[in-house]
Amino acid sequence: GENGLEIESRNGNFKAEIGGRLQVDAQANFNDESGPLNTHLYNGTSIRRARIHVGGTLYKDFNYKFEYDFTRAGNRPTATGITDAWLQYAHFKPFSITMGQFKEPFSLASVTSNRFITFIERPLLNNAFVEFPNPYKLGISAESYGTRWTVRTAFQTENSGRNTSISDTSYEAVGRTTFLPIYNGPTQILHLGASGAYTWVNNTFDSAAGELKNSPLIFASQPYTNVDRTPWVTTGPLTTKLGPDHKRLDRVGRFGAELAGVYGPFSFQSEYTRVNLSGIGYSGDDVLDGYYAFISYFLTGESRVYENKRGAFGRLKPKRNFDLGNGWGAWEVAVRWDQLDMNTDNVNGGNIQTATIALNWYVNPHVRFMANYGYVVDINTRAANPAIAKFNGLNPSILEFRAQIDW
Amino acid sequence: GENGLEIESRNGNFKAEIGGRLQVDAQANFNDESGPLNTHLYNGTSIRRARIHVGGTLYKDFNYKFEYDFTRAGNRPTATGITDAWLQYAHFKPFSITMGQFKEPFSLASVTSNRFITFIERPLLNNAFVEFPNPYKLGISAESYGTRWTVRTAFQTENSGRNTSISDTSYEAVGRTTFLPIYNGPTQILHLGASGAYTWVNNTFDSAAGELKNSPLIFASQPYTNVDRTPWVTTGPLTTKLGPDHKRLDRVGRFGAELAGVYGPFSFQSEYTRVNLSGIGYSGDDVLDGYYAFISYFLTGESRVYENKRGAFGRLKPKRNFDLGNGWGAWEVAVRWDQLDMNTDNVNGGNIQTATIALNWYVNPHVRFMANYGYVVDINTRAANPAIAKFNGLNPSILEFRAQIDW
Amino acid sequence: GENGLEIESRNGNFKAEIGGRLQVDAQANFNDESGPLNTHLYNGTSIRRARIHVGGTLYKDFNYKFEYDFTRAGNRPTATGITDAWLQYAHFKPFSITMGQFKEPFSLASVTSNRFITFIERPLLNNAFVEFPNPYKLGISAESYGTRWTVRTAFQTENSGRNTSISDTSYEAVGRTTFLPIYNGPTQILHLGASGAYTWVNNTFDSAAGELKNSPLIFASQPYTNVDRTPWVTTGPLTTKLGPDHKRLDRVGRFGAELAGVYGPFSFQSEYTRVNLSGIGYSGDDVLDGYYAFISYFLTGESRVYENKRGAFGRLKPKRNFDLGNGWGAWEVAVRWDQLDMNTDNVNGGNIQTATIALNWYVNPHVRFMANYGYVVDINTRAANPAIAKFNGLNPSILEFRAQIDW
Repeated sequence: GENGLEIESRNGNFKAEIGGRLQVDAQANFNDESGPLNTHLYNGTSIRRARIHVGGTLYKDFNYKFEYDFTRAGNRPTATGITDAWLQYAHFKPFSITMGQFKEPFSLASVTSNRFITFIERPLLNNAFVEFPNPYKLGISAESYGTRWTVRTAFQTENSGRNTSISDTSYEAVGRTTFLPIYNGPTQILHLGASGAYTWVNNTFDSAAGELKNSPLIFASQPYTNVDRTPWVTTGPLTTKLGPDHKRLDRVGRFGAELAGVYGPFSFQSEYTRVNLSGIGYSGDDVLDGYYAFISYFLTGESRVYENKRGAFGRLKPKRNFDLGNGWGAWEVAVRWDQLDMNTDNVNGGNIQTATIALNWYVNPHVRFMANYGYVVDINTRAANPAIAKFNGLNPSILEFRAQIDW
Repeated sequence: GENGLEIESRNGNFKAEIGGRLQVDAQANFNDESGPLNTHLYNGTSIRRARIHVGGTLYKDFNYKFEYDFTRAGNRPTATGITDAWLQYAHFKPFSITMGQFKEPFSLASVTSNRFITFIERPLLNNAFVEFPNPYKLGISAESYGTRWTVRTAFQTENSGRNTSISDTSYEAVGRTTFLPIYNGPTQILHLGASGAYTWVNNTFDSAAGELKNSPLIFASQPYTNVDRTPWVTTGPLTTKLGPDHKRLDRVGRFGAELAGVYGPFSFQSEYTRVNLSGIGYSGDDVLDGYYAFISYFLTGESRVYENKRGAFGRLKPKRNFDLGNGWGAWEVAVRWDQLDMNTDNVNGGNIQTATIALNWYVNPHVRFMANYGYVVDINTRAANPAIAKFNGLNPSILEFRAQIDW
Repeated sequence: GENGLEIESRNGNFKAEIGGRLQVDAQANFNDESGPLNTHLYNGTSIRRARIHVGGTLYKDFNYKFEYDFTRAGNRPTATGITDAWLQYAHFKPFSITMGQFKEPFSLASVTSNRFITFIERPLLNNAFVEFPNPYKLGISAESYGTRWTVRTAFQTENSGRNTSISDTSYEAVGRTTFLPIYNGPTQILHLGASGAYTWVNNTFDSAAGELKNSPLIFASQPYTNVDRTPWVTTGPLTTKLGPDHKRLDRVGRFGAELAGVYGPFSFQSEYTRVNLSGIGYSGDDVLDGYYAFISYFLTGESRVYENKRGAFGRLKPKRNFDLGNGWGAWEVAVRWDQLDMNTDNVNGGNIQTATIALNWYVNPHVRFMANYGYVVDINTRAANPAIAKFNGLNPSILEFRAQIDW
């Protein structure tokens, strides 16, 4: 059926299913190459995500999910493309407890599946503060929901993978809650949300060499694009070699606020996130932050779909699937403004503003084509070092396409 | 059932299936080690291919397929074992449009699935001109077929993978068409085919170091074998470091012609492929080429199976499956001659002739055992450099076995 | 149903199924850091195993299985996480022949699936002599069983993987047989077993550099733990660089004896394994050995499950699954003593004794939580080199947890 390979026992106590997603991207760049160094963004194509998952229910109360992203194999020192790998006890539905590897509950745009986001890439603040440092972490969470609210809290550690234990792991307490002050059915919704995370960063030094043995934390973002993954703004390593200018990031606090709404074919969504850094070489003024806001409109009359159980947006079903002569699917236009500021007293991460317009064609609930045109309004990295500041003053624009299918 | 895990909705508009293939090889070498350097081919065993695929149909008109080869994980800088990753719009059957990653439509032996090829390894010209430079590329194609013909044309780019964008991608226009001048049912067939491809090669230099940043194109081939993957003939990098003897490959044209036939238990197959190189340091005389021809005979009376929809050979069903006392499966003998010439004015890639005999046992449609004995008749690399020319004059012979199952 | 995604044709001649396992570990260490060097064991979490398998039967007599461990991707030079990849001919059941990659048949604790072992990690002798040198090898085996006995013999080679043939492969003859002198139904069992393996080690040197081209054989073990995978005892490379103190391991003989029993809720299990080294620089006195013994008791009255077909322990089914108010699952306590001696005339691998206690909660047949507390009673590496002997005299204790689900 529509739900792919899925099997269920007669009493519903056992279920098993296999699914996947495929996102193929193409990117063309209209670069402003007046910079002193190599500031060319590369044109090309890329498989953005190719994921297979298996999931199911055992003995009614136990759920599990395993998902692998085949585009990430061998990509990191931990050499893992595992995204979800958890088991869940859900006897007291809707309350449940989840153990294993799962995405940290932080920010509306990150909790919304990448299959359902409105633009090809998530907002800059999500890239920088959630996605880039790898949001899939091992730990335990408790979660529940009602018609108008959700809450999920977790204690998570870095995924240390196999054979890679060269230090104790960092760990964090993280949570997100959402509430709907207005909920007049699926087409009139006002959503409020808040996320908080506090991370105890582990820094293990090789005392002889003065080098950090584990990977330092970095916050960074590309300007929307994925085919060329050069980060245009980046804090660089926030813990540095032992020595005269040594900095050591010990604690990171993150806070996010969400506001979103649906009114018939119109919807809007915005978030603000701030990040407090503390440790050796950092002061109370070292705060990174960003916000975004976008509006979307369905030319074909659909409404963005809100999943009350997750407090996030979900799968759109066109009023009429694309079928020659019988229907044209759903068509959506959207425009987004992004701002990210990673310049502080002690961090020259860069300040960037971008604008993006989107045209989405939902052929049917499982096939989608997307086109984005993005423009970098301003970049300002205050560092004197040209290698860090080379994109300063450039205004590239980028055209991206995506073909997506999930099953 | 025989087709493994496969589910179909009652109206046939939705389908999903999972399948795979497994090829386990062993190789013993009878080497001629008179060469001045290390010319020993290694004996051993290897998993040649271990692939899982998922595929299906959504809303009747949309097909998809994802396949991963687990033996290739981490094998290349792009760290990807993805072979197929595409979605297809097939409303106007038999015409369809395919987007994503798929194998370039070029050459009968490459379009024939490796599950159904007559010898353990494809002919030398396929290894050198199609398989070695990675035939799985991202792009878009249009294809159609009739009972007696097929055509497929594509525009494809290199798969730039994730995090690997260090240059613009190369791209190519490629196509293949086939025709059956004789088609008296499945046991009397004459097949003609032609392929053409034109590649715009991207060369991105680090101007300071003079080094190429992306991987240079290379054409190379082993002498049939896969357990020891040393290429005996190789052009080496066709774009070299900036400097006095700098060569830069800008364009590659490939053309291939196919002739094949089935007459009861007999069949023959042959191809000729030529490759034109152009760019800095190349002239119109820099043409690489090769051909092969083989004949096959089924001792048990079956005919090689031709797939009219693909213009290539397909799965053999033995008249009687192997079942002790009731049937012995299908037995096939075959002999192939291979010639590959990669010596030109400006390329010392080597000239090689080989002969191979094969004995195949089709236990049933999904299990096959193969034995090949190959002999290198001649190798001639004109370079004075002994590291390049070390195999010159050697005549190794190689015994290979394969056990194969697919489901 | 309980068995996940499984499909069978009406006559039972075709079957296909997909399953998997997930093991998530956490580790806290109570270290004795009095050593002169870095002897800190790291705290943290890890996905121990994340495996998916597909398997089935074709044409009644042919079975196949493919399994991939996603935590091992990119982990080794051979870059492979493939565990099982075989096809089997089982016409003469219970006799069968298996070809492809499978685990060597050696030792009760290694043949028992890691889903069903009593402690979080296998005994030290299994880690050192079977698991660490990679037990998944390519080859062919013959096996059979009766109610009271099993036998499996194999000829296997190293898995040389793709593109990694830099030498001929090593190969081995290996076998295991088991017998039940007492078998009064599933709750009264006495098990005897013996394993033998003889390995012809391949050493291929780069004669110019004097370096070994392929990976040298090493026997090593951590003290139970997996999150931090530092081997506390290790022989180091048993073949060394050409030169004055050159050693070359040519042959390895391994022999193991097993004794185990079940008596209602009680069970015990013990093994002794010895390893004879021979080659340049080794004498008849170079024998590594180890033993372990453990007892287990089910507080809830179950008996450990013996699989007569495999001669090993299998899946426990609690008398009552955990279901609030209706049942508490099965609870097991166990204690193990481990001894491993890798000190010989020519090898300073270390001598180690450890004690471990375990508490296991079987929630249902497919979900299990485990807690282990381990204590290193003694370590003695005789080498003067502090980098090798740095753990000498330390007595760390380790607390480990595992959450496991398989389907």
